[in-house]
Order: sequence, then C-alpha cells, then structure tokens
Amino acid sequence: MSEIATPSASAGAMPALADEFRLAMRRLAGGVCIITGLADGARLGITATAVCSLSADPPSLLVCINQRSSLCAALAPGRTFCINVLNGDQADIASTFGSSRVQAERFLGGNWQCFDDGIPYLPDALCSIRCNVDGMIDYGSHRIFIGKAGAIHLTDPFRPLVYGNGAYHHLHPVA
Amino acid sequence: MSEIATPSASAGAMPALADEFRLAMRRLAGGVCIITGLADGARLGITATAVCSLSADPPSLLVCINQRSSLCAALAPGRTFCINVLNGDQADIASTFGSSRVQAERFLGGNWQCFDDGIPYLPDALCSIRCNVDGMIDYGSHRIFIGKAGAIHLTDPFRPLVYGNGAYHHLHPVA
Repeated sequence: MSEIATPSASAGAMPALADEFRLAMRRLAGGVCIITGLADGARLGITATAVCSLSADPPSLLVCINQRSSLCAALAPGRTFCINVLNGDQADIASTFGSSRVQAERFLGGNWQCFDDGIPYLPDALCSIRCNVDGMIDYGSHRIFIGKAGAIHLTDPFRPLVYGNGAYHHLHPVA
Repeated sequence: MSEIATPSASAGAMPALADEFRLAMRRLAGGVCIITGLADGARLGITATAVCSLSADPPSLLVCINQRSSLCAALAPGRTFCINVLNGDQADIASTFGSSRVQAERFLGGNWQCFDDGIPYLPDALCSIRCNVDGMIDYGSHRIFIGKAGAIHLTDPFRPLVYGNGAYHHLHPVA
C-alpha cells in the first residue's frame, strides 16, 4: 500500500489526513515508558511512548501528555515526575497503566519504590529518570513537559519493551 | 548493574549525572527517522530518533534538532520539513545521514522523491510526513520543532528500523 493524503486533495480531505496521521503514528515505534508523579501525596502514573531525549546539557527529556489526564493536572514548573523506561518483561505493567483502571490499583503490580521526594519508580525498569518540570508548552490536545534530569537509576541488560503498530515488541539486532 | 546518580551525591556528581544520562538515553529505543528540508533550494537531511507524536488535532509531531545543525538554521515558522520513518532495510540510509558526509552526497543513496514544494521524501520509507513548522522552543543545545502534518505517505508492511543501545534493531512481537 502506498498513498498520499493532503488537506487540499478534496473537500473531505481533512478527515482523510487525520486517518492517515493515525496510521503514520502507528508506524513510529518507541520505547514504552511509565510516567509517574504525585498529586496531594497520591501516586499517579500513565503509559507513554511520546518521550524523547532533548539535550545533554542540561540533561533533559520531554514527554507529551494529554491535557485531560490527572497527571497533566498534577505537574507544574518545579514539580517532579519520573520517566520509567520499561524492560521487555514488563508488558503487563504497560497494559495496566494504559488502561482505565483507577490510579491506586495501577500500582498494585510491579516492584514500585520511591525517590526521596516520594516519586514512584520501578527499580527493575531499564532506567528511571526523575525530572524537574523545567518548561511546559500546550499544543492541541497535549502539553509538552520539559524535564530536567535530577536522579537516574539504571539496570542491565538492554532488552526494552517497544510499542508499534498497536502491539508490544522486543528488539533483535540488525544482522 | 543498578545504581542511582543524583546531583547532590558529591562535589563531582554533575559529571556523574551527565554520564548516567547518556547511558539512560541509550536505553530509550526509538524509530529511526530522516528529517529533510530545504535551504536556498538545496536538500538537507539528518538522522534523528528524538521524534514523537504530539496531538491528533491538529495532526502534529515534534522533533528535537541540534541548534548547530544546518537543518535547524533552515527551519522557521511556516517553512516545511519531512519526517521519514525508516524501514528495517534502510539502515544504510540512516548511517549516511548520521555521518559527517556533506549534504549533497547524502542524497546519492535512496530512492528520493519530492513533494510539490520540493521537500524530499523517501517513498519506500514506512511513512513520510510533510510538516509545517508551527512552533519552536529552544532548550539547552537543541530546538524543539512542532510540525503540523500537511501531507502523509504510507507504506506496508510494518517492519521498522529501531535504534537503541548504539545499534540498529528490528522488532519481533512479544509472545
């Protein structure tokens, strides 16, 4: 299959572009992350793949979060959150945090621990990066959070959980 | 291996955090993309994995580009660029655009074509998304470009090229 959609192609082209965009985003594979935070002392977490490295100086990442989520409402400049990059055997955790389950129940599975400030992290994730919110930009339905890394937990070996085309995957090296 | 680095751990902790950040970012797998643009009619392209979906309405993505790159200098609000999400058999193209080769030589390999406005795209990539620059945010060494999708080219099947831990990978489904 090979096709191009443009907004000017026909009167009904904007829905076509929206559909093509959804199909295109299914093709953009990404490491699966659980983004965690606190709201009035209660733990919050969501599954996300819209996470990327931003700058090495300062060490920073960004994550795009739906503005209607409770985690988005809990984050503000100076507040902290954690990006947990999942291991290949943590698909069940990804599914739980990507579901409609209430927040308190989401943390029943997984070996959760807390940084000094109470932010939850998964010590058996591939890595956990505690960040301070150092910028927020709203665009469309989402808010971009710039996170300045403050503490990092790492594990080996490298065997990530990757999401693409609506399913979880593992990696194998290109021959 | 399992360790935590924090900026306050010791007087020399900031370099340690920088090292840990580099190791953490190696663990964040991502689909490999070639970002293309034009400068005075000449084609420019770089390899990038710091690309993510932003919002479905408007259909939009973001990409983080080093401010010292010629592509960064060529992009400004209203200008267009293309995000080409590579197929698993396009590792050679990723290597070329991630190298120090001069821009004109980078386009010698690959079946490049152009959108109406001259922006190059790869018709055999997994998808190519032509975007208008709809926002720019500088942070550290990089600039975040918000791209509003304007035209999309898709191919099947889903067999992406994924980068992680310093190497290219293919995917296989979690059993």
